[in-house]
Amino acid sequence: MNWKKRTRNCGQLRIDNEKENVVLNGWASVVRDLGGLIFIDLRDRWGITQLVAEPEINPELAERAKHVKTEDVVWASGQVRKRENPNMRIPTGLIEIVLDDFGIINKAALPPFEICDDVELNEDTRLKYRFLDLRRPKMQKILLTRNKFYQITHRYFAENDFVEIETPFLMKSTPEGARDFLVPSRTYKGKFYALPQSPQIYKQILMTAGFERYVQIVKCFRDEDLRSDRQAEFTQIDVEMSFVTQEDVMAIAEGYLKKLWKEILDVDIQLPLRKMSYREAMERYGSDKPDLRFDMELKNVTDIIKNSSFKVFSDVADNGGVVAVLNAKGCAADYSRKKIDELTEYAKKYGAKGLAWMKYIDGAINSPIAKFFSQEEINIILQQVNAENGDLLLFGADKFNECYTVLGALRLKIAKDTGIIDQVKDSFEFTCVTDFPLFEFDEQENRFVAMHHPFTSPQDDSLEKIETQPAEALAKAYDIVVNGAEIGGGSIRIHDAEVQRKMFKALGLAEDEVAMKFGFLLEALKYGAPPHGGIAFGLDRMVMILAGTDNIRDTIAFPKTTTGLSLMDGSPSEVEAKQLDELGLSLLKKQ
Amino acid sequence: MNWKKRTRNCGQLRIDNEKENVVLNGWASVVRDLGGLIFIDLRDRWGITQLVAEPEINPELAERAKHVKTEDVVWASGQVRKRENPNMRIPTGLIEIVLDDFGIINKAALPPFEICDDVELNEDTRLKYRFLDLRRPKMQKILLTRNKFYQITHRYFAENDFVEIETPFLMKSTPEGARDFLVPSRTYKGKFYALPQSPQIYKQILMTAGFERYVQIVKCFRDEDLRSDRQAEFTQIDVEMSFVTQEDVMAIAEGYLKKLWKEILDVDIQLPLRKMSYREAMERYGSDKPDLRFDMELKNVTDIIKNSSFKVFSDVADNGGVVAVLNAKGCAADYSRKKIDELTEYAKKYGAKGLAWMKYIDGAINSPIAKFFSQEEINIILQQVNAENGDLLLFGADKFNECYTVLGALRLKIAKDTGIIDQVKDSFEFTCVTDFPLFEFDEQENRFVAMHHPFTSPQDDSLEKIETQPAEALAKAYDIVVNGAEIGGGSIRIHDAEVQRKMFKALGLAEDEVAMKFGFLLEALKYGAPPHGGIAFGLDRMVMILAGTDNIRDTIAFPKTTTGLSLMDGSPSEVEAKQLDELGLSLLKKQ
Repeated sequence: MNWKKRTRNCGQLRIDNEKENVVLNGWASVVRDLGGLIFIDLRDRWGITQLVAEPEINPELAERAKHVKTEDVVWASGQVRKRENPNMRIPTGLIEIVLDDFGIINKAALPPFEICDDVELNEDTRLKYRFLDLRRPKMQKILLTRNKFYQITHRYFAENDFVEIETPFLMKSTPEGARDFLVPSRTYKGKFYALPQSPQIYKQILMTAGFERYVQIVKCFRDEDLRSDRQAEFTQIDVEMSFVTQEDVMAIAEGYLKKLWKEILDVDIQLPLRKMSYREAMERYGSDKPDLRFDMELKNVTDIIKNSSFKVFSDVADNGGVVAVLNAKGCAADYSRKKIDELTEYAKKYGAKGLAWMKYIDGAINSPIAKFFSQEEINIILQQVNAENGDLLLFGADKFNECYTVLGALRLKIAKDTGIIDQVKDSFEFTCVTDFPLFEFDEQENRFVAMHHPFTSPQDDSLEKIETQPAEALAKAYDIVVNGAEIGGGSIRIHDAEVQRKMFKALGLAEDEVAMKFGFLLEALKYGAPPHGGIAFGLDRMVMILAGTDNIRDTIAFPKTTTGLSLMDGSPSEVEAKQLDELGLSLLKKQ
Repeated sequence: MNWKKRTRNCGQLRIDNEKENVVLNGWASVVRDLGGLIFIDLRDRWGITQLVAEPEINPELAERAKHVKTEDVVWASGQVRKRENPNMRIPTGLIEIVLDDFGIINKAALPPFEICDDVELNEDTRLKYRFLDLRRPKMQKILLTRNKFYQITHRYFAENDFVEIETPFLMKSTPEGARDFLVPSRTYKGKFYALPQSPQIYKQILMTAGFERYVQIVKCFRDEDLRSDRQAEFTQIDVEMSFVTQEDVMAIAEGYLKKLWKEILDVDIQLPLRKMSYREAMERYGSDKPDLRFDMELKNVTDIIKNSSFKVFSDVADNGGVVAVLNAKGCAADYSRKKIDELTEYAKKYGAKGLAWMKYIDGAINSPIAKFFSQEEINIILQQVNAENGDLLLFGADKFNECYTVLGALRLKIAKDTGIIDQVKDSFEFTCVTDFPLFEFDEQENRFVAMHHPFTSPQDDSLEKIETQPAEALAKAYDIVVNGAEIGGGSIRIHDAEVQRKMFKALGLAEDEVAMKFGFLLEALKYGAPPHGGIAFGLDRMVMILAGTDNIRDTIAFPKTTTGLSLMDGSPSEVEAKQLDELGLSLLKKQ
């Protein structure tokens, strides 16, 4: 061995350690030559300590130290001394190590970018050189936060008597919802495993097997066209409990969140979390994941305008739709016609056909649609939304979901554009959204699909509606939302095989299809399944929020690009013909 | 909700709880009708509690209780009472619950087998009905032991400042060693990801990224024809450390094992573990994973017989081979000619051409080969192996590895057949096998292959031998063995890009192949890689040993058969043509 092992790490030494002889190991972060005096900032996972080689004491050593390059791997031996010019920004900044010997363990080539936080980097470069990117303090901190997250999770669920159980990665392909990643079987040519989109069915089977409280931190996979905030492989904290109601699952979830926020950020979450029905969340905030850090509530004005002469609105009202208003406080002056046109384009992305608006300035209404309303109607609207001088009112008019979705999107956009989000960015507002619809109608497939998943239990008084009024049926489903992001979602599951069959039927699945895809779940439910339910948290997104980054790839050691490339290792890649042959597969000719 | 939630669990109530009113939830394990008095053993994850319905007190209730069937899911409310006939085999056996009300939450169909330990079950049936198999006390206990294993692991490595980091599941295919499972990419048709055989390269890259101490409990995948003690997906505890030598890694491993055995079995492991070189393990026990619970050491007698007239032996000696002896103590009488023929067949499976033997009975030698040796040679052999009256000597003669491998296999077989293994089955003998050869010669491929993997560092004085005498080069590699099973293995890795290149060259990899497969590792080593090394433990096998089962599938919640079938969910299965189409794949026609 041509190097000396550390006796201390680089984050450890303080003024109390003065005169201590130490050996450190690490990376040369910065090397400075101040008139022959060589300073090296030595970095390891725990911190940075300054080394100094003094030519008066040891000229040979100082000469050698000159040749240390940034990112060289170094061992250093010397004595702790009080610094003349302390660096108050680091915990070790009061001391330095006067070198008596050192060596370069491994030379580093010149890195393609500087290892520090305040450097402008193209993300592709960062991903290609991930081993260097991860050395940057910011990235180290995020992955250490993620580690803390794991440890709190392990402890919390163990303390609450949960059993950690691994579910299989090579499982059955049941494409219902997202697209599966497939894994061809070599032994059974022409057959495939699928990677789990979630261990949903397996955790339910663990409940029928009597484990009562299950937890797993588990990778899941979805082969979807990726949005920038999604990864094809992602991690969830998967939880399931038996003999419980929604309140029991929520109590476990709340205790968990409280611990995470306290231990990682020293933030106290008030429990119980605010509860809000899906309907209320939509009506007040235009979203099933409302950002409650600010108000800007929507108001339903359908009853007020239903008799107005504005046909666009009154038609919507007549057809059972909703007309609602968002009051963009104080925005009348700032939103020129051009900016309102931009808002209109934005609203159209969310399905709006247009965007009606009113400015309330000095007691008067400025609006292309003002003429369609009586003064009384206008007065009631203004009163309804607490309009004050300078406010801008934006109208949505459509079916329930469509109307509120558009206004919800505008609410967030206005909050962002006017700086409101910036003002509240260090606060956390949690809510638990409940009473989701059991189904939603899929226009493309022209059938009802499960809003959560097909195993979600209907509410007790919605049981009959599965068959008679599916659109009205509510589910025992819940999401946990913080600052407008969904971080967890779950439900009480169906534990009765007959109800599960009804559910599959309502979803338009034929009996043989059900038998083939979900036969083993129905079989498991047959032999004494307990009432059960659970929740799954999105780990990557939670770490994102806790670490204060807005890039999900920053929370993952080796992420992929949005198209699924690993720029570091070059996967996916071509494989040898022999490998495909063994799997009984061939590539389709390119069209 | 048509049931009452538990106030206590079924493993909790004691005589101190007498007169307490409780509600329990669980499964009806046994239902007995003793002249109108109905007893139900109610089971949950925590235990079993006896319920009783008394017709004199509540005839309607007793009548209903009669109709409870085994495995029905039940809620029960009543008062704790001292039992007249206590059951001392269970912790709750002193009390029972006198029912005041109960209900069936979910009816169970008649299970295909009884939920208890002492039932003869075909393993295929168990795997198909895994949700019922897992309800059996033995299986519950194994998975709870596995849970305990996880928790100890999380705690131990966190306490030792390791960082838990997730490595990718969709990675680059680099078939070197075992066969990869492939995952076709939809976005990049014709390209594939591979599932990890181990996160080896990624954990090394995490060391170059400066995380210093990494741990992960991680699924790994090998698409091999399965032996009965292997699963295609298996779990390892993956560990890597920077700025360390073999001794540092071993100290972490030893502390870990000590904790596991203490907390799970209350067994004290003496540290440091016994160390033994690969060569010593082979020469004394004929295995690189020696079972040290019993002696039966092999003896090298090459020098003694090299001038004998038995040409089979002397030729081996002349060609640099080894002749060695296993003394099967006291086996002379028991091993008839027929049994020795069976031993010979067994030895041939391990590569022996035949099996020479000598019986030592009443001072005389009985052996087909006795005539080839002088009395003096025989006396020295007898002395060398401490032969006593009634001993059976078995000879191996071949090249080093081949000779000892055969004798090692015979040693285990004799120990098993004569009941020695049975006598020692409750003891644990650990050893750390070190100083492995760096390469082994692969006769089929006619080249050297890495004995551990291509990233293993040669020992300092073997560095030059990589090119000049590969067969003699030793590695900084180590295995941890308990009772003849390898439970962990690791090495100090190569941290110098040039040494790594030499290693690839010695393995016969062309430069472009190296660049394509391992270019990103070489790139990472270039920018300041620290000295590093690690170890990986086989979780499934360790749980097997700690839980005292000899079936690896018992340690896994949802295992596959040896051919990779999941009998419960029916995977692998056919997929829709559309799914293959999207992946740009087609099935080869069956031949």
